[in-house]
Amino acid sequence: MQAILDAAEALLVEQGYEAATLKAIGERAGIPIASVYHYFADRHQVDAELAQRYVRELDERLAATLDRAESRTVREACDAVIDVLLAYFREHPSFVELWYPGRSSTLSELARAFDVSQAAQLWRLLIERNLIRADTPQFVLELAFEAGDRLFDVAFRRSPTGDDATIDEARRLVTAYVETYAP
Amino acid sequence: MQAILDAAEALLVEQGYEAATLKAIGERAGIPIASVYHYFADRHQVDAELAQRYVRELDERLAATLDRAESRTVREACDAVIDVLLAYFREHPSFVELWYPGRSSTLSELARAFDVSQAAQLWRLLIERNLIRADTPQFVLELAFEAGDRLFDVAFRRSPTGDDATIDEARRLVTAYVETYAP
Repeated sequence: MQAILDAAEALLVEQGYEAATLKAIGERAGIPIASVYHYFADRHQVDAELAQRYVRELDERLAATLDRAESRTVREACDAVIDVLLAYFREHPSFVELWYPGRSSTLSELARAFDVSQAAQLWRLLIERNLIRADTPQFVLELAFEAGDRLFDVAFRRSPTGDDATIDEARRLVTAYVETYAP
Repeated sequence: MQAILDAAEALLVEQGYEAATLKAIGERAGIPIASVYHYFADRHQVDAELAQRYVRELDERLAATLDRAESRTVREACDAVIDVLLAYFREHPSFVELWYPGRSSTLSELARAFDVSQAAQLWRLLIERNLIRADTPQFVLELAFEAGDRLFDVAFRRSPTGDDATIDEARRLVTAYVETYAP
């Protein structure tokens, strides 16, 4: 199972999303296709398993960062989250391949659930530190993640390592929006 | 040809994107499938033809609005654009069906080209009226459209007529971001 996931990861990085078929993954791993089918019915299950592993790891990193972050402004808090996300995407180009919009409904749902849970954490932190009004709807942070997500897509479409100018605009956009809820 | 497009439009509204296959479109229009194939090789060509018509009409409406808009603030200028887009989407639920992300690469490219050309127009207007600094990159308005687009997706995912609370947040987010470039 781990060998299959490793092969899928390598193919995603080297040849991109379309090339990482179940057949190609089996060949790359040196595992007969029948054995691959024992674990995964189709490529979408491989994608989902990989993406879930990335998301779990990223969740832990974000939680750790928010725990010890000494953010005294909305900008610092947003930057802390964006820095972790950007570093993780840059370290895991295979995750970038999977994370692009429209890959599959399973991956879209996973991305949405991730955004919602991260938004909830950032919302709590901002309210605890009195950086946004106590009555700010959690939904506002969810939309900030949606918009930031879209600008990350643009950044990684412009450059495989994430275009810096676009990421800077993402910081600026998310911060300006969330600051409209300052106390 | 018009009958085929009319049938496609009706199917999109009544039964959604997945149901509007070439076969179903032919049946709905009362046209033998062989004749449908004479005009369109696959459903994506029907989608693209329809979307191009919507985009041309929307282009004209937006140009007319910006021409006579007396926007004296960034907020008024952004609202003028958002009002036109929202009204058009609400009048054309078939366009909403096509415009969702990930439908096909042709539709994604069409959406991107539309955003870029609208961003250029709004950028010129904002600079002419001295509402943003003269050195503001055009790219900033493109990103504002990308982010606004994503929040429109969320609004129409939440409600088939576009959730008002989400649209209000889209106005707020786009305005706050663009205002960071005020002179």
